[in-house]
Amino acid sequence: MAKAARVVSPESLHHTVARIFTAAGCSDQHAAVVADVLVWANLRGVDSHGVVRVPRYIEMFKSGEAKARPAIKIHRPRPASVVVDADGAPGPVALQSAMTEAIVAAQGAGVALAAVRGTVHTGAIGYYAELAAKRGMIGVGIVAGIPNMAYHGARGAAVATSPLAIAVPSRSRGTIMLDMATATIALGKIAQHKIQGLPLPEGAALDAEGLPTTDPAKAVTPLPMGGAKGSGMSLMFELMTSVLVSNSIVAPFHAKAPGGRKHRQNATMLAIDVAAFGDPDEFKSTVDATVGAIKALPAAEDGAEVLLPGERGARTFERRTREGIPIPPKTWESLVEAAQAVGATVDG
Amino acid sequence: MAKAARVVSPESLHHTVARIFTAAGCSDQHAAVVADVLVWANLRGVDSHGVVRVPRYIEMFKSGEAKARPAIKIHRPRPASVVVDADGAPGPVALQSAMTEAIVAAQGAGVALAAVRGTVHTGAIGYYAELAAKRGMIGVGIVAGIPNMAYHGARGAAVATSPLAIAVPSRSRGTIMLDMATATIALGKIAQHKIQGLPLPEGAALDAEGLPTTDPAKAVTPLPMGGAKGSGMSLMFELMTSVLVSNSIVAPFHAKAPGGRKHRQNATMLAIDVAAFGDPDEFKSTVDATVGAIKALPAAEDGAEVLLPGERGARTFERRTREGIPIPPKTWESLVEAAQAVGATVDG
Repeated sequence: MAKAARVVSPESLHHTVARIFTAAGCSDQHAAVVADVLVWANLRGVDSHGVVRVPRYIEMFKSGEAKARPAIKIHRPRPASVVVDADGAPGPVALQSAMTEAIVAAQGAGVALAAVRGTVHTGAIGYYAELAAKRGMIGVGIVAGIPNMAYHGARGAAVATSPLAIAVPSRSRGTIMLDMATATIALGKIAQHKIQGLPLPEGAALDAEGLPTTDPAKAVTPLPMGGAKGSGMSLMFELMTSVLVSNSIVAPFHAKAPGGRKHRQNATMLAIDVAAFGDPDEFKSTVDATVGAIKALPAAEDGAEVLLPGERGARTFERRTREGIPIPPKTWESLVEAAQAVGATVDG
Repeated sequence: MAKAARVVSPESLHHTVARIFTAAGCSDQHAAVVADVLVWANLRGVDSHGVVRVPRYIEMFKSGEAKARPAIKIHRPRPASVVVDADGAPGPVALQSAMTEAIVAAQGAGVALAAVRGTVHTGAIGYYAELAAKRGMIGVGIVAGIPNMAYHGARGAAVATSPLAIAVPSRSRGTIMLDMATATIALGKIAQHKIQGLPLPEGAALDAEGLPTTDPAKAVTPLPMGGAKGSGMSLMFELMTSVLVSNSIVAPFHAKAPGGRKHRQNATMLAIDVAAFGDPDEFKSTVDATVGAIKALPAAEDGAEVLLPGERGARTFERRTREGIPIPPKTWESLVEAAQAVGATVDG
């Protein structure tokens, strides 16, 4: 029988993660940001992007792929353009800085875009987009990384499952938040199908030879959402992030250049101050009316509910904030090991 | 036997379209812009967004849905935010103004976003994104309109097949351009399947009852690309365009408000000056290296070619620029009728 998940309070989990990162050499402030972002993913039910990632960050600090004490440089060459040279900072540290700077710049300029150069594992990027929404702005984020998804019409891994997040503030429904990958199916979902012995849908993944498969045991490369659309978006995101900040990933990956396959990510965060286009109060009310109209539509299946972007995650967030976060035994053990390795203690 | 298409030179077609719009009351400058955008769509092979639309514009001038002499107001409340109050101008006039203003603002601020309030039929929006790419910038465009696409999990038309265009300049491969709708299948493609008597793919469209169908004769509502992803993008685009400029479309449509189903569109154009983030020459070279790596990938099917976003359209553009644009007899007749109705002459 499988061991039950341990249920941990968000505060306790946050303390544990922050202590691990502090012990691994991060500043208290950076450790708190990493803990914020990882625990946020768990709260929203995106466990694949939550504290399960902690051991990998610690590994990357040891291998030099990431830096616990990065020398982050932030430039604002023009009123609405920000460049964050992350120097191998963990994704949460780099992207939180970037969106924070974009928000400040957008307060003045109306709109601002912050491009992040050279970070690692950015996590659930809805978090950063929502930072803008919490300030009454529209937040948009995109990320590029090492190719792990097919390009429409080509064999094998060609581009990344690069995500897009868009967060918009409402008056009474919290943040309306789209947070999606450009792949048809998440790598985590392929793993779930494998465990459950269920075939994958047609057109979701390729095997190691680069050929279509519905066998989750053979599937290694997810296919892009909507064929040419998903892989086109991913390729454009690489141009709008990595290439924009001279830290190309796709080209050196395929050229098999030295270090070309080393884990790294780049990102671009956009903040749009709605007050620079109209009345921000009216904006929020009209967001309410718009998503309210969608919620009121008849469901495709009787008895089903029409869901807004991010609505399921927001409900999980509320529930887990009250009831605690279930952590599977393996994840918990790996957290304890990571803590021991850096000499930190674990709550819970 | 079907009559052969008439092959018209782009210059001649441009003159004809411009004359029709001038005769319909537009200024010479506005008429030329509309002709630019419509003929551009035909040159790229996007005939559904080309001169076939002329009669509908003329109709809208007559019905008052659109204005031939709009009082367009352009504000720049902050350095990077532009609001274009289109006053019912044809989409090409409004969106070309918007992207032009965004480019000017981005030259100063690094990035700028222009929101367009109250236009009609925006056409092939890659055109406006490419205006930025031609100035060495990244151009992004989104549009919202009257609901004609399903929302994931709901019945009937709920949101629009709102397009996204992203254009990036390269050194030697012209503009790399993604121009996609958020639907699985275009309305035009459903019509083609109907003519050819071919079934639609599963999961592409709904019938008049809001139920899934593969019968092109019964299909009325395309389904969103990637399920919740495509309809989520479309809903967010409505918030980032219509709601941003207080000209909501989705909410009044579903509320069956007076005028709520009248044709209108809103749009948002983003210009990103790559020189505000790094070296623009290096940017273009790295774009070349990146898309070159994609082109060099082994094709999924032997003998096939891996295509870049916009590559097929760019080839059609070159061929039709040299060889002329084929105009089907029905489209030609409708152009001649539109010309006669406003008292203009037709070339070719």
